[in-house]
Amino acid sequence: MNTFSYEQLYKFTHDMLLKIGCPEVHAQIGADVLLSADMRGVDSHGVARLSGYVRLWEKGRINTNPNIKIVHETPSTAVVDGDKGLGLVVAPYAMNVAIEKASKAGTGWVSVKNSNHYGIAGYHSMMALEHDMIGISLTNASPLVSPTFSKERLLGTNPISVAIPADQEPPFVADMATTTAANGKLEILQRKGQDAPEGWVQDKDGNSTTSSNGVKDGGALLPLGGDREHGSHKGYALGSIVDIFSAVLSGANYGPWVPPFVAFLEPDPNPVGEGIGHFFGAMRVDAFRPAGEFKSHMDNWIKRFRSAETTPGNEKVLIPGDPERELEEYRKTNGIPLLDPVVKDLSELGQRFGVKF
Amino acid sequence: MNTFSYEQLYKFTHDMLLKIGCPEVHAQIGADVLLSADMRGVDSHGVARLSGYVRLWEKGRINTNPNIKIVHETPSTAVVDGDKGLGLVVAPYAMNVAIEKASKAGTGWVSVKNSNHYGIAGYHSMMALEHDMIGISLTNASPLVSPTFSKERLLGTNPISVAIPADQEPPFVADMATTTAANGKLEILQRKGQDAPEGWVQDKDGNSTTSSNGVKDGGALLPLGGDREHGSHKGYALGSIVDIFSAVLSGANYGPWVPPFVAFLEPDPNPVGEGIGHFFGAMRVDAFRPAGEFKSHMDNWIKRFRSAETTPGNEKVLIPGDPERELEEYRKTNGIPLLDPVVKDLSELGQRFGVKF
Repeated sequence: MNTFSYEQLYKFTHDMLLKIGCPEVHAQIGADVLLSADMRGVDSHGVARLSGYVRLWEKGRINTNPNIKIVHETPSTAVVDGDKGLGLVVAPYAMNVAIEKASKAGTGWVSVKNSNHYGIAGYHSMMALEHDMIGISLTNASPLVSPTFSKERLLGTNPISVAIPADQEPPFVADMATTTAANGKLEILQRKGQDAPEGWVQDKDGNSTTSSNGVKDGGALLPLGGDREHGSHKGYALGSIVDIFSAVLSGANYGPWVPPFVAFLEPDPNPVGEGIGHFFGAMRVDAFRPAGEFKSHMDNWIKRFRSAETTPGNEKVLIPGDPERELEEYRKTNGIPLLDPVVKDLSELGQRFGVKF
Repeated sequence: MNTFSYEQLYKFTHDMLLKIGCPEVHAQIGADVLLSADMRGVDSHGVARLSGYVRLWEKGRINTNPNIKIVHETPSTAVVDGDKGLGLVVAPYAMNVAIEKASKAGTGWVSVKNSNHYGIAGYHSMMALEHDMIGISLTNASPLVSPTFSKERLLGTNPISVAIPADQEPPFVADMATTTAANGKLEILQRKGQDAPEGWVQDKDGNSTTSSNGVKDGGALLPLGGDREHGSHKGYALGSIVDIFSAVLSGANYGPWVPPFVAFLEPDPNPVGEGIGHFFGAMRVDAFRPAGEFKSHMDNWIKRFRSAETTPGNEKVLIPGDPERELEEYRKTNGIPLLDPVVKDLSELGQRFGVKF
C-alpha cells in the first residue's frame, strides 16, 4: 500500500485522458469526477478504473472527443445523446442541463443514452447543491445482479444518489448501490480470502452462498434485502426503476443488454438501445418553499437524527454522506492510499503511454 | 373469516364517509382509494382502517370538508395544503395537479402538507398510467422505524410507489415500505403467535429480536436491509428521502414529529409543521421519447424479466405489481375476505352511526 497526493493522481489522470484524445476541458472534468471517488473512499470507482476506461477506448467503445447533445426536450425534461463519450464527462453535461431546466421550470429531468460508466453517482447529484437544489443521479450498469427468484443476471448494481442541501449542517448525500453490498466490498473479501455474509451473493445455480468468489464463479449479487423474506423484491424493484428511468426512457440498453464494463467481453450483438443510460434530476427547493426555510428545517432534521439515542455498542447515528465527507477531509491532508496492484497497473499504463506516474 | 363483495364494502365505506361529513364526491373518492387496498391484498390499508379514520375525525384531527388548495407553484411544481383533510381525498387531488403540470411542462412534482394517512401509495401513482405518464407516490407516516444504530423510532414505514406504463403487458407497479417488512406482516405473525425472521424488528433496548411483539413492546421496525452488514443504512436513507420530499419540502411534520395514526395518542405539542406530508410525481413518457416506442420497449423489458430462468423451487420471476394485480382479478370474482375482528369492528361502527353493514 502506497499513499499519493490528490494533485499527483489528478495530474496523472488528466494527462492520461489528454493522451487518449480528450479535449482539455474533458480531461479536467473526467479527472475531477474520477478522483472524487478516491477522495470519498469509493476506491473501486476511482483511479483504479482508469486503465479500464483506456482499454474500452482502445477497443473503440469510448469516443474521447464526443459531440454530446440534447436530442429531445420539454420545459422540464431532456434526452441527452452522449455520443459514446466517457460517462465521466457526459454525466456532468447532462446534470447541468437538468440544473438549467430547473432554474426556469422549477425542476429538470434528463435521461441519457449512448454513454459509458459515469464514476460515482454522488458526484453528479452533489452538483445541484450549490444552486440550492436537490440533486438526483441514477445509472444502469453491466448485469451482475439477479432479480428475486432469477438465476440469471439481469440488472447492474444500479445506484441511487440523492443530495439535499442544508444550511449550517453539511448536506444529506445518499449514494448507494441497490444491492445488499457493492461489488467492491465483495472484491475486498476475495482478496483477503474471506467469506461473505449470507444475503450478498448467490451461486451459478441460484442458491445462496457465502463464497466471496460467487459472482466471479458465475453467480450473482443479490438485490438489497438479500432474499424474499428480507425484502429482496424491493431491492429488485428499485434496481429496475433505475434501469427503466436511465435506459428505457432515453433509448439506451437496459437489463441484460447493458454492455459490459470490461473490454475483454463483447457487447450483445443485438443491442436494444445505444450504450448505457443515466438519469438525472434537479429540483429547486424554492420551487416548493423559501430556500432559507427549507434549509433551516433540514438542519433541524439532521440534528435530531444525529443526536438520536444509539443501540448498544454504537457511538452515533450517521446522516447519509457523513462517512464519505469525513474520509474526504482526512484524505485531503493525508493523501490517497492505493493497493499495490493498482499502483502497478497505473505505472504500466503510464509507461505504455509515456505519461509520468 | 367472512367474504364480502366489492360493492357491499364500497357502499358501506361511502355511506360512512358521508355520515361523518364528507361531500358526495369525496365519499366516492375516499371509498375507491380505501377499497383498492382490499382488492390488491394490502388488507392493512383498506376498510380495516375505516374506524381509525373515524376516530381521528371524532378527535377533530380530520376535517371531512376541507378546502384543499395550491399554496405555491412553478411550471413543474406545486405545494398543496390539505386543510387537515382525509389523505384518501387530498392525495388524488395532489396527484391530479402533478398530472396537469406534466401535461404542460413535461413533468409535475407536488409536495403536500397538512394531510392525513393516504391509503395505499400505489393507488395514486397508478393514476398517471392512463395518461401515458410514469407516476410516483411517496408519503411519510407515524414513527415506527429506527434508523441504523438508533434506539429511537424516527421514521415511518415511508413507502415508495412507482407506476410505469407498458403496451400489451400490464404496467410495472412497485409499491413498497422502505422497511424489511411492512407492519401488517408483523401483525399477522403476532395474531398467529409466531416469531418474526431476524432482521425485521429490534426490541426497546435496540437489540435485534425475533419477537413479533417487538414493536408493540416499545421496539421498532428495521429499515430495508435489517442491519448494517446487510445494507440497512440504505433502507434508512430511502425512508429519509421519502420523509424529506414529503414533509421538509412542503412544510409538514417530519421524522419523530409526524402525528400518530391512532387517535388515542396525542400529536407532539410542539409540531415542526402541519399534519403529515406526501410527495407525488408525474412524468409524460413522450417528454423523453415517443410513447409508442417507450411502451414497446417496456413490453420487451417485462417479457425478458418474466421469462428469466428461475432459482431452485421457484416457478417464475415476478414483475413488480404482478401479485397485486392477480389478487385483484381473483377478488373481483370471489370477493374480499375480512378477518372476524375487522367484521366486528365495522358492524359496531355501522351500528353507532346508523349505517347498514
